[in-house]
Amino acid sequence: MSFETTATIASFGGKLLKLAHQAKSTSCQMKLNLYLPPQASASKPAPVLIYLAGLTCTGDNGAEKGFFQAKAAEKGIAVVYPDTSPRGLNIAGEDESYDFGSGAGFYVDATKEPYSKGYKMYSYITSELPKALFAEFKELDGSRVSITGHSMGGHGALTLYLKNPGMYKSVSAFAPITNPVNCPWGQKAFAGYFGEEDKGKWGEHDATELLPKYPGQTDILIDVGTGDNFYKQGQLLPENFEKAAQAAGKGVKVRYQEGYDHSYFFISSFAGEHVEHAAKYLLA
Amino acid sequence: MSFETTATIASFGGKLLKLAHQAKSTSCQMKLNLYLPPQASASKPAPVLIYLAGLTCTGDNGAEKGFFQAKAAEKGIAVVYPDTSPRGLNIAGEDESYDFGSGAGFYVDATKEPYSKGYKMYSYITSELPKALFAEFKELDGSRVSITGHSMGGHGALTLYLKNPGMYKSVSAFAPITNPVNCPWGQKAFAGYFGEEDKGKWGEHDATELLPKYPGQTDILIDVGTGDNFYKQGQLLPENFEKAAQAAGKGVKVRYQEGYDHSYFFISSFAGEHVEHAAKYLLA
Repeated sequence: MSFETTATIASFGGKLLKLAHQAKSTSCQMKLNLYLPPQASASKPAPVLIYLAGLTCTGDNGAEKGFFQAKAAEKGIAVVYPDTSPRGLNIAGEDESYDFGSGAGFYVDATKEPYSKGYKMYSYITSELPKALFAEFKELDGSRVSITGHSMGGHGALTLYLKNPGMYKSVSAFAPITNPVNCPWGQKAFAGYFGEEDKGKWGEHDATELLPKYPGQTDILIDVGTGDNFYKQGQLLPENFEKAAQAAGKGVKVRYQEGYDHSYFFISSFAGEHVEHAAKYLLA
Repeated sequence: MSFETTATIASFGGKLLKLAHQAKSTSCQMKLNLYLPPQASASKPAPVLIYLAGLTCTGDNGAEKGFFQAKAAEKGIAVVYPDTSPRGLNIAGEDESYDFGSGAGFYVDATKEPYSKGYKMYSYITSELPKALFAEFKELDGSRVSITGHSMGGHGALTLYLKNPGMYKSVSAFAPITNPVNCPWGQKAFAGYFGEEDKGKWGEHDATELLPKYPGQTDILIDVGTGDNFYKQGQLLPENFEKAAQAAGKGVKVRYQEGYDHSYFFISSFAGEHVEHAAKYLLA
């Protein structure tokens, strides 16, 4: 058993499992939440929606306040809520900023010292975690996986989807950082994880730069609140992503939701619709 | 304006207001959350569901993790999330226990010193708060109010309903303390708020003792998780309430939900059905 189940919690007719496992890519124990809908069984495995959380979050926030379970239970979709970074690597300064280091892995594989040791969330999310989960939980159908996320996790969802054609059946995002090379959060993170010199590497993890290179059509759903302070501060830049989509003829729908902020009150209000979006592809 | 609005947060098409006001009954500033559904307006005021929270909670917990807003928005029902006690009265020891004093007002008017100064949550919830809210928020219909609650708040919902025929259109509860005079939580609270001597006073705030005296029929919905440790420890005693209902010929439906615990994962799983229960009466 590669996973330890630290709690099993009934939720919307299914089960929310609190899991922990030793991960090689991140060189530490990783915690996560896994929601198994009531329909899931080894003989009828459920498709999977991965929810990548934003800055400062763990795998708990989405499970407690995102309200994905309600619609996931209805549709028979499992939800995976990973953590947002390695924890406890004892890298000097890793816990000092809310937007860099622990709680802020940005879903990349760091190449710059000292973060290159363990800050490998790209490999963890795209490879190590799903392999381990699908090997152990026969209630999950590893051939049907979609991805979504919030803010930094929205960046993660979009870039992981765009970099790995065929890996995910669909993608959506809540208030995603869509053009990190051009916003303060992304510039700080990429400078710290990749270094200032290798800007080519930065673009490889920028949804707005990746979108035109994606082979084939897309159907990407994005919600952004017009009252979101980080949107107003230019951290999210969904207009840049929309322009790239228009220029490249890609399908991207950005819904500007009147008055909504950046919080889980925003996420929970539209979580059901994002599960529906994934369900269109997962249950097709 | 008797209320200060410290935040306005978009949620499920409506607005969640973070409010604060100076309350006479509790001798302090009281905070609360008020959810206004999208349908509410001064010309078409919305009926109101009051959610009383449990031990250690504030008015924030239900609003963040209860998911009442989803169904309330659909039905056009406002939700009031009050705090669970006065705060900051500087009574010696008031912050020392999780189950007595601050965060644990038990929805009674304390008669024993020193808690008789300010620990008047019964008066606050049944009188001062609704009067103030309905005077200020014309989007609320003060003639159509229902009540629900969790654990200590389930005790509050049941007792306030049973002690005030006609005040609330309906009542339901999640894992309520139904027979506080016979459980450790209730005994500790009532001893502290009323004193050991006056046991008659205790019974006036015990749902199982109040139920047979209620004039007329009832339709009370209660959910209790079979995996709830506080249920197993005998803090909730729903069987006693059911027996009293049977003896008195009152309508009480207790649903024992397989495997559910005492947490907000349990509440959120059934919140929609409790809003539906209230809607039957509020929208009749």
